[in-house]
Amino acid sequence: ARAYTIAVLAGDGIGVEVMPPALRCLEAAAKRFGFQMNFRHYDWGSCTYYNKHGTMVPSDWKELLQACDAIYFGAVGDPATVPDHISLWGSILLFRREFDQYINLRPCRLVPGVTSPLANREGRDIDFVTVRENTEGEYSSIGGRIFSGTERETVIQNTVFTRVGVDRVVRYAFELARSRPAKRLTSATKSNGISITMPYWDERVETIGKEYPDVKVDKYHIDILCAHFVQRPHIFDVVVGSNLLGDILSDLGPACTGTIGIAPSANLNPTAKREDPNWCPSLFEPVHGSAPDIAGKGIANPVGMIWAGQMMLEHLGEKEAANAMMLAIENVLKEGREAQLRGEGDLLTPDMLGNGTTEGL
Amino acid sequence: ARAYTIAVLAGDGIGVEVMPPALRCLEAAAKRFGFQMNFRHYDWGSCTYYNKHGTMVPSDWKELLQACDAIYFGAVGDPATVPDHISLWGSILLFRREFDQYINLRPCRLVPGVTSPLANREGRDIDFVTVRENTEGEYSSIGGRIFSGTERETVIQNTVFTRVGVDRVVRYAFELARSRPAKRLTSATKSNGISITMPYWDERVETIGKEYPDVKVDKYHIDILCAHFVQRPHIFDVVVGSNLLGDILSDLGPACTGTIGIAPSANLNPTAKREDPNWCPSLFEPVHGSAPDIAGKGIANPVGMIWAGQMMLEHLGEKEAANAMMLAIENVLKEGREAQLRGEGDLLTPDMLGNGTTEGL
Ligand SMILES: CC(C)[C@H](C(=O)O)[C@@H](O)C(=O)O
Ligand SMILES: CC(C)[C@H](C(=O)O)[C@@H](O)C(=O)O
Repeated sequence: ARAYTIAVLAGDGIGVEVMPPALRCLEAAAKRFGFQMNFRHYDWGSCTYYNKHGTMVPSDWKELLQACDAIYFGAVGDPATVPDHISLWGSILLFRREFDQYINLRPCRLVPGVTSPLANREGRDIDFVTVRENTEGEYSSIGGRIFSGTERETVIQNTVFTRVGVDRVVRYAFELARSRPAKRLTSATKSNGISITMPYWDERVETIGKEYPDVKVDKYHIDILCAHFVQRPHIFDVVVGSNLLGDILSDLGPACTGTIGIAPSANLNPTAKREDPNWCPSLFEPVHGSAPDIAGKGIANPVGMIWAGQMMLEHLGEKEAANAMMLAIENVLKEGREAQLRGEGDLLTPDMLGNGTTEGL
Repeated sequence: ARAYTIAVLAGDGIGVEVMPPALRCLEAAAKRFGFQMNFRHYDWGSCTYYNKHGTMVPSDWKELLQACDAIYFGAVGDPATVPDHISLWGSILLFRREFDQYINLRPCRLVPGVTSPLANREGRDIDFVTVRENTEGEYSSIGGRIFSGTERETVIQNTVFTRVGVDRVVRYAFELARSRPAKRLTSATKSNGISITMPYWDERVETIGKEYPDVKVDKYHIDILCAHFVQRPHIFDVVVGSNLLGDILSDLGPACTGTIGIAPSANLNPTAKREDPNWCPSLFEPVHGSAPDIAGKGIANPVGMIWAGQMMLEHLGEKEAANAMMLAIENVLKEGREAQLRGEGDLLTPDMLGNGTTEGL
């Protein structure tokens, strides 16, 4: 039988709470569709591993993860104990960079049962995908500080766009747009204000776009694009942007469709080969973070984590199981909402205006 | 009688359309409150001056503007003819930088008569101000390209934060928060991902915050902050951010309260002195741009331009006139909406779901 080895990194905060129900869903899918999921648990969180060892991961983290087919990641960070940039650069951002997971893919869809004040304006559905560059750009970690502690103190950080880095994500977005019915690509920049890096991105979109005459391309500045996400989210199909701009859009998108609590995310290295000695597994996580403010209350929405699992199944080639799982997510949310409206018990978590719990849902 | 000399730069696109009604409003206010407005018109737009001379402004632009008490600016840009970054860096962005207009202030308020799907959730009003750093940060213009045209092509741009630049905008935001009933300051960064410049901003907010124990400070990452703008805009009071982050928030905010068409913006140098030979006038403009897509149709909303004029009167010290003008704006919008609802003629412009015209409103 088909078998997959999955590295399970629950992490911190609500990561730890949403992981168990999500693993149960994956196990149920595996059972029903005749494959095996072997979970390897690693307690690499700020509150756990870092607390004991002073680093987020052990020195052999790379080999441990390379022994797996995919990484299933909750969330890390506990800002009260460890500064966020240490938790994150020692974990999720490290994995993205070292495994060259250059695509961050986030579907943004109005799922039945989810209510949003923006839903169905003009009677149309919201169904788009953000494609975010996930390894370079604004998250360069290059820069520094001079004249520290004086009035002349100056802090500089570089944004770095490479031809290879920009082209591969833009090309991926074009391919994705081509595969969808609307065949529409929206590219986000801020080339009127950020006058060196951003016009370069525009240039590459134009050049690569010539290979995709069947895809309709729109270029937007990020400020007005954010406004359009609120005012007419239904017009978007595939939206591509740099590391920072993609980050902003992929939180704003789910907020416009109702709740970040259900949004999933795939960090993909689409060209990596399992048999390669330098294999780079892809990573699947919810869009939300460790959310210290609601951690420990048992009220986190597990759907983002579960939906990320669904994306992982799809990536592993288990299409049937992935489809079934998507249907199950939609049904649970729809039934949850209907029960809520009928006043018959409330399974939905507070982010969906219910009073249910992580385990209940 | 009190008299003010105002440089009027209508610019391009809808800038040219919204300026005349706005000037009429200012003239009416001047007449009623007993002061004089002397308008000096300059046709410095992409379609006008640039078209003839190949530069956005004449070489003596600085002296011409320094002879004025304030600058009243429509919008520039005609991307079909001139690349945006040329129009903008030759005009509005040049003025901001050269006159050291380091504060970009944008009120975001749910005005009576304006409808928004996000309005009055939880029954509370939306009323906040964004304070954007307006001279440095991501808009540094420092950087370049190497290995052009090859696979190794790499493009780098620096984000620059200086102690002086960060401190003065953060301090301004704290003072503003202190002067408002809610006394709440929200600082936007992305210090978990952008690990050099953004943590520096956080550090300065913490340090300066010690001088303002009466102001409640929240730090948000820009991604989740954008989500909160959509999900609970009523919780914000004063929001401060860097050039890029502030730009995004100040378009998203008005989008959440209904329409960018009514949003105004002040580019301030709060410490400049009129009698100083190096006097730096402040600049007032609508948040919207030249909007080539709707230019020439006569349907642009003039309220953003008019409200910017209201901010200019306030800045010039004409408080009474400014208050009266604010009331007039609110009344027109409210009456416009009521008439629309009664089906009695429609003065509101299309961005407010009406079918009125610029001049009609
Ligand atoms: C036109 C553009 C350069 C400008 C900016 O980004 O500053 C505009 O979006 C604004 O907000 O005033
Ligand atoms: C936690 C943070 C560093 C991360 C990011 O900005 O990439 C998160 O916001 C995300 O979107 O995955």
